[in-house]
Amino acid sequence: MVTDPFAGVLSPVVTPFDADLQPDPRRFVTLCQGLLREGASGLAVFGTNSEANSMAASERMKLLDALIEAGVPGAKLMPGTGACSITEAIQTTKHAVEHGCGGVLMLPPFYYKVATDDGLFDFFAKVIDSVADARLRLYLYHIPPVAQVPISYDLIERLVTAYPGTVVGIKDSSGDWSNTRGMLERFDDFAVFPGSEVFLLDGLRHGAVGCISATANVNMPGIVEIYDNWQTDRADELQARATAARRILEGYPMIPALKAVIANRLGDPAWATTRPPLRTLPKAKAQSLVEELEKAGYHGMIEKGALAA
Amino acid sequence: MVTDPFAGVLSPVVTPFDADLQPDPRRFVTLCQGLLREGASGLAVFGTNSEANSMAASERMKLLDALIEAGVPGAKLMPGTGACSITEAIQTTKHAVEHGCGGVLMLPPFYYKVATDDGLFDFFAKVIDSVADARLRLYLYHIPPVAQVPISYDLIERLVTAYPGTVVGIKDSSGDWSNTRGMLERFDDFAVFPGSEVFLLDGLRHGAVGCISATANVNMPGIVEIYDNWQTDRADELQARATAARRILEGYPMIPALKAVIANRLGDPAWATTRPPLRTLPKAKAQSLVEELEKAGYHGMIEKGALAA
Repeated sequence: MVTDPFAGVLSPVVTPFDADLQPDPRRFVTLCQGLLREGASGLAVFGTNSEANSMAASERMKLLDALIEAGVPGAKLMPGTGACSITEAIQTTKHAVEHGCGGVLMLPPFYYKVATDDGLFDFFAKVIDSVADARLRLYLYHIPPVAQVPISYDLIERLVTAYPGTVVGIKDSSGDWSNTRGMLERFDDFAVFPGSEVFLLDGLRHGAVGCISATANVNMPGIVEIYDNWQTDRADELQARATAARRILEGYPMIPALKAVIANRLGDPAWATTRPPLRTLPKAKAQSLVEELEKAGYHGMIEKGALAA
Repeated sequence: MVTDPFAGVLSPVVTPFDADLQPDPRRFVTLCQGLLREGASGLAVFGTNSEANSMAASERMKLLDALIEAGVPGAKLMPGTGACSITEAIQTTKHAVEHGCGGVLMLPPFYYKVATDDGLFDFFAKVIDSVADARLRLYLYHIPPVAQVPISYDLIERLVTAYPGTVVGIKDSSGDWSNTRGMLERFDDFAVFPGSEVFLLDGLRHGAVGCISATANVNMPGIVEIYDNWQTDRADELQARATAARRILEGYPMIPALKAVIANRLGDPAWATTRPPLRTLPKAKAQSLVEELEKAGYHGMIEKGALAA
């Protein structure tokens, strides 16, 4: 099994917006610190579930500055720095490296769906060559259901061959276990994080190093427990319990649902706000989600003030 | 038939990049001025074929500044200002209005494919309300094959009702004539531009005001001729000739092909450069494209130096 500094459970941290839809650094720092206290091995800030692409690059960099200033260790941070524009991908990656981030998680450029492996290789290569910093550790971000531009095995092969020690892993959000397993079988010394805790136990059993999951925003302890006990006889039961919690959340639009639950956990209704085109979960829906989680016994996920310092 | 200040043929102007992949304002101004001399009714700079999303917002605004400084009339400009991030959509739209642009062409936010009409309405409404300028004339940009986020008739209806005089038209790059015709039948006082000259004559006959087409970058005179003669008995013949030219270009990756032809027309090989993930057309392919166009009799499209001042 490959060792990786981020081994464990990461959350693509959701981003708070104020009433005027501006990113809110204070609330963001609070949540990030809370998730680390709950056992997160790292924070994949500025991912899909963070509404990262609904923010300008400058807004993301300011939020990262706020985390560092608040004392969150850079080594724990794996910010998303992919972009359609190579200019922004270079700028934010350089910013992350210079702020001591342990890694970056990089989407392919996702506007042109006709992009070829050659073109995607050019893109990643240009970013790495332009950042030109030996500290850079780049994790690829494969999320075809959203980006619609996949990262193929061949592309991974070419990148790890050209940039050993720099291109070090991947988040696989394909939702396709056979794709994840194929990666685990094909690549040595390459850190694979399934993009959902549903595949955490199977992943660990096949050599994955953890997972990066949206629902870890609200169920970090339940998912970390799988990671901590995966070689014990409680593993399957813990996995089943976390998976059941996820299935409840999947009955709602994911990002608004996560924010609704966090609003509850932090006792702070402002957390429910999303940026367009996403919409805040209507109050009745938020209420039914909380009731479903409560009924199923997930009290920790909805306990008021549970995450606050 | 609705009247529109941009009525006629617009090109989504391709963007030149230098050897270090930086946008090149000098070459950009040259091409824009050349296209206006060739009869363009406007320039839809920063569209899909302009590799707009491969540039940062700041790069696009600098190129727009360069055009204005070079004396290109703002009234002729319809820059693309859509973005995944509402911050950038507001910033570039405001910049365009303040520089006297006759309109903006706005993609929906295209990262989240689950966006609903409600969420997209929120996005456009927030941009319009934030720009808060009566001079804003917004054309929607429907390009589902690339953006993967469509603009439905219902969304158009809601936007033109909420923002009359501001949301004034659409570029329909669905490639689906029945969709374009449906818009023409349903909306009055709404400027519809098919996204390809293939639908120009049918469009004009059903109330469209012109077209905005990638291939107008290299065949502006041939397409303008259809527009100028659409009510004459030469119309079908002119349409067939322009369509045939387009079919040749469609045999190649469109943006690299356009750039290869422009490199020829301007006698300037540097024009062939694309930003990743797109790739420059290999020399042999560029040569075969030029030969195909020549063989088919499209001498004007490949004449060396034809576009230069």
